[in-house]
Amino acid sequence: MKLKNLVGQRFKERPADCVIDSHALMVRGAYMKYVCNGIYSEFPTLRRITAKIEKIIREEMDAIDGQEVLFPVVMSADLWEESGRYESIGSELLRFQDRNKSKMVLGMTHEEAAVHLVREYGQSYQQYPFMIYQMQRKFRDEARPRAGMIRVREFTMKDAYSFHTSQEDLEQYYQKCYDAYNRIFAKAGVPEVVTVASDSGMMGGKVSHEYMLLTEVGEDSIVLCNECEFRANMEAAETIVKNEGKNELQPFTCVETPNCKTMEEVCSFLQTPVEESCKAVVYQRNEDDSFVVAFLRGDYEVNETKLRNFVGAELHPAEITEDAPLVAGYIGPVGISEKVTCVFDSSLKGISSLIAGANKEGHHVTGLNLERELRNVTYADVSKVKEGGICPCCGKPALTVKRGIEVGNIFQLGTKYTESMNMQFADKEGVLHHPIMGCYGIGVGRLAASICEAKHDDYGPIWPISVAPWEVHLCCLRPDDEETKKVADALYEALQKNGAEVIYDDREGVRGGQMFADADLIGAPIRVVVSPRNLKENKLEISTRDKSLSEMVDVAEGLSYILDLKQTLFQRIADGVR
Amino acid sequence: MKLKNLVGQRFKERPADCVIDSHALMVRGAYMKYVCNGIYSEFPTLRRITAKIEKIIREEMDAIDGQEVLFPVVMSADLWEESGRYESIGSELLRFQDRNKSKMVLGMTHEEAAVHLVREYGQSYQQYPFMIYQMQRKFRDEARPRAGMIRVREFTMKDAYSFHTSQEDLEQYYQKCYDAYNRIFAKAGVPEVVTVASDSGMMGGKVSHEYMLLTEVGEDSIVLCNECEFRANMEAAETIVKNEGKNELQPFTCVETPNCKTMEEVCSFLQTPVEESCKAVVYQRNEDDSFVVAFLRGDYEVNETKLRNFVGAELHPAEITEDAPLVAGYIGPVGISEKVTCVFDSSLKGISSLIAGANKEGHHVTGLNLERELRNVTYADVSKVKEGGICPCCGKPALTVKRGIEVGNIFQLGTKYTESMNMQFADKEGVLHHPIMGCYGIGVGRLAASICEAKHDDYGPIWPISVAPWEVHLCCLRPDDEETKKVADALYEALQKNGAEVIYDDREGVRGGQMFADADLIGAPIRVVVSPRNLKENKLEISTRDKSLSEMVDVAEGLSYILDLKQTLFQRIADGVR
Repeated sequence: MKLKNLVGQRFKERPADCVIDSHALMVRGAYMKYVCNGIYSEFPTLRRITAKIEKIIREEMDAIDGQEVLFPVVMSADLWEESGRYESIGSELLRFQDRNKSKMVLGMTHEEAAVHLVREYGQSYQQYPFMIYQMQRKFRDEARPRAGMIRVREFTMKDAYSFHTSQEDLEQYYQKCYDAYNRIFAKAGVPEVVTVASDSGMMGGKVSHEYMLLTEVGEDSIVLCNECEFRANMEAAETIVKNEGKNELQPFTCVETPNCKTMEEVCSFLQTPVEESCKAVVYQRNEDDSFVVAFLRGDYEVNETKLRNFVGAELHPAEITEDAPLVAGYIGPVGISEKVTCVFDSSLKGISSLIAGANKEGHHVTGLNLERELRNVTYADVSKVKEGGICPCCGKPALTVKRGIEVGNIFQLGTKYTESMNMQFADKEGVLHHPIMGCYGIGVGRLAASICEAKHDDYGPIWPISVAPWEVHLCCLRPDDEETKKVADALYEALQKNGAEVIYDDREGVRGGQMFADADLIGAPIRVVVSPRNLKENKLEISTRDKSLSEMVDVAEGLSYILDLKQTLFQRIADGVR
Repeated sequence: MKLKNLVGQRFKERPADCVIDSHALMVRGAYMKYVCNGIYSEFPTLRRITAKIEKIIREEMDAIDGQEVLFPVVMSADLWEESGRYESIGSELLRFQDRNKSKMVLGMTHEEAAVHLVREYGQSYQQYPFMIYQMQRKFRDEARPRAGMIRVREFTMKDAYSFHTSQEDLEQYYQKCYDAYNRIFAKAGVPEVVTVASDSGMMGGKVSHEYMLLTEVGEDSIVLCNECEFRANMEAAETIVKNEGKNELQPFTCVETPNCKTMEEVCSFLQTPVEESCKAVVYQRNEDDSFVVAFLRGDYEVNETKLRNFVGAELHPAEITEDAPLVAGYIGPVGISEKVTCVFDSSLKGISSLIAGANKEGHHVTGLNLERELRNVTYADVSKVKEGGICPCCGKPALTVKRGIEVGNIFQLGTKYTESMNMQFADKEGVLHHPIMGCYGIGVGRLAASICEAKHDDYGPIWPISVAPWEVHLCCLRPDDEETKKVADALYEALQKNGAEVIYDDREGVRGGQMFADADLIGAPIRVVVSPRNLKENKLEISTRDKSLSEMVDVAEGLSYILDLKQTLFQRIADGVR
């Protein structure tokens, strides 16, 4: 199409409210428009990209025998009450009433709807396995939407649900889907996406993986091992701490620690390494505000996901009021109120003598030995992995922490939904069982934005050809020059006839600089410039958006050169598909 | 794909809650599943149909230079407050609050979002005209969802919005879109869809058309002329009544009419034709419950849309309580309370003497002459056209009333939204104007259901090949017979290799009758049966779903015969495209 007809207003200035580059470029390039907090409209340029991503996803889902369905965005609360999530999910789940005062929700994920759709179909083992998927809008009432299309409230998502008669069958299919996801990201031009083990969160189930695009601006922390293949989301990475022989057994003593509120201050005052202290981090259960204290080695941080999973309840950082059964700043394991749940992180295990709060204003204890002072102390892993930590896979102190954007996830759900919603199949002997589920998601808009984040320069996105809004950006400099216009028009026609997707800039009165800036913002992988100067030498200027190629090509050779280049760029994508 | 893997449970019995055939067949054939009032999930079979319809629509929208965009389902109320519709639309507009107590709505149509997206882009006349469209879920909180996918609360809709600098330009584009719509319906296999002039309702604007599929089960009444091309929705059809010389001037007299409450009873009691009476139909304004009385000839009915448009307010049928300024059953134009708005339908014009209520319990008047008794009586057209009525186009008494399903609509919106939302463009001289809009909608699911309603028999849908879930339904009777299975498998492979979409039924232990019943419910246009009996004579049985063709074809010729037949069926569709 002609650029002059393309709906959307491009501009130069970086918008002040855009923190990450992809957001800024996608606003500047008229890809998206802010409607309200976390909600955007897509301009034609972005819609072309998301349509291509949707197509790639459909191909791969169909290739692993997925059957496309469509669930509603709006559902009755009943369905979510069946699974128990109407109660268990926080305010991300948007609840409202319709005109008849029926309780409704906006779908943020569709496990319930999936089970509802196939509950009757899946009554015999002979129907299994099967997978259904949809491409649909979803709404999550995020507290803090951010980073443009990366974390929004409304988004298009491909969500897939598989149903199996055995764990083995699920695991086989899970592996197929794992591979299909790798192909999807490779086809979308980001083969560098890595998988990490993850926490299943509100979805239920045990085994799950996230697909991460590593980038400094990612909101997820990922733990990788420099020595082996281990990769996990920080939320799911096991923390291993070795404390053997750290110090010696000392007598348990209460000491005055005036004005020392933080463990760092206490350790400094007592001239003891912070690694030999036991700090307390206090939470409250959402349901009843009862207190949960996590004790951990002074230099470790709480991993809230692990803690929540261990306690089995939603938590929030505590507000310690006057009547709380805790002495803020001086909380320790010995003599603490029995109303409080204490969790001991495994980072404390094996330390002979610890400093800790004395549960008494202005006092700490030294020489705390947990096994000696407490009965039956059990340890749990509720701390965050640290840079240089011990790899749970190869055992070497080679862990490193990076940041990434989650572009997809896959879960082995188990029977959480089929049990709660009472879906059953009869096996060969007629015995009833709950089918085992897997679920598999990809956010379409987030993937588009992530690709932009991974592939851009200061001037705009560098779209991989497989998802680019157009393959070729054709600029006619000086369209008022008859000969130039004629050559450019002919090339435009010829390219389209040969199946190339071309955006053609033949705007009159627009300088080359402006044309090139627009081309950079639109980010088509191949750029062709027709100008009076080049035509004097009977040449076209052909370059790639990533600057790796720039050639002067004979006009007569132009068409085939461009088509070959297109072919080459697609081949590079194909080569990246494992 | 293989039928045995197709997700969805087909069954024989007509569901008790299905009033219309398409609904019953689409439930029985596992096309859709009820989630809650007016909300359904789509099984794979329906999703394949809606995907094809979406593709046809996109092709035609792109062909008239439409640019696909995407607006959100969830929008802030602000946007709708700008246009004034947040207040003016009733409870079909679903309003709710998000977690931050911000007022939000679910998009039921996207004029506001469209203006919001292009308000900055469209600041210069040089950008015009342009059209943007989307394929998106919508939600209307209908009071009475019904008829399966025909009237639902959540649905996928293609909605398009065009922007113009002049009425002439809009009219030119409107005609293009009018033609594109005809092509869409023809390509979808229902070239019999007719256009009718319609009322613009809540959309604003003056000229609008609906695309109607005529069927007894339609919820719209359509007025057609047997003598000319006139076609209009009942809501928009002008009523013309000729009363000249009906009767003679008589003196105005009040008479007792004991126990006569309806006008029929009064006329019968007074032995006067009901055509010489003036009946009263009472409404109340939604905003303040004030009364509006429509007076019309005794044998005519109120057209509520016309009345609402004339009064300029939302109305509901009145509840006449004790303290109302009206004498229920005896309401007439003379001596009626001044608190009441009276509307005189043009069906009363020219009648010299009328019977009417006397506004006095147990009394009516005779010899009522509206021009004589009232000052400045003005007439408005607020009645429904009757069978045999006068055509407003050719003037002949040749009107007929049919029923239809609205499968699409197009509106000349004017500047309703660009004015209220202050979108402006500068013309060549720099003078600012509000652009003129058109909007164009098609409900995807409703079109699918309408096609089914128009094309089915007792056994299932007869899908046009262009939207059929599969083109070929291949049945292998007795797949346990090795030779039969081999031939069927080979044909399945060959057909797929040649680009045919095949659903292959090779279920073991399923009788022919069951296979054919399933094939009828799935409704693929071409059916191929491979059976040991036919193979004895080296034949395949090839037939069409509409029963117009049934042939025994040599096995060796099978593939090319089927591919030719497919070609022929597609050609028939193409021939229907004007």
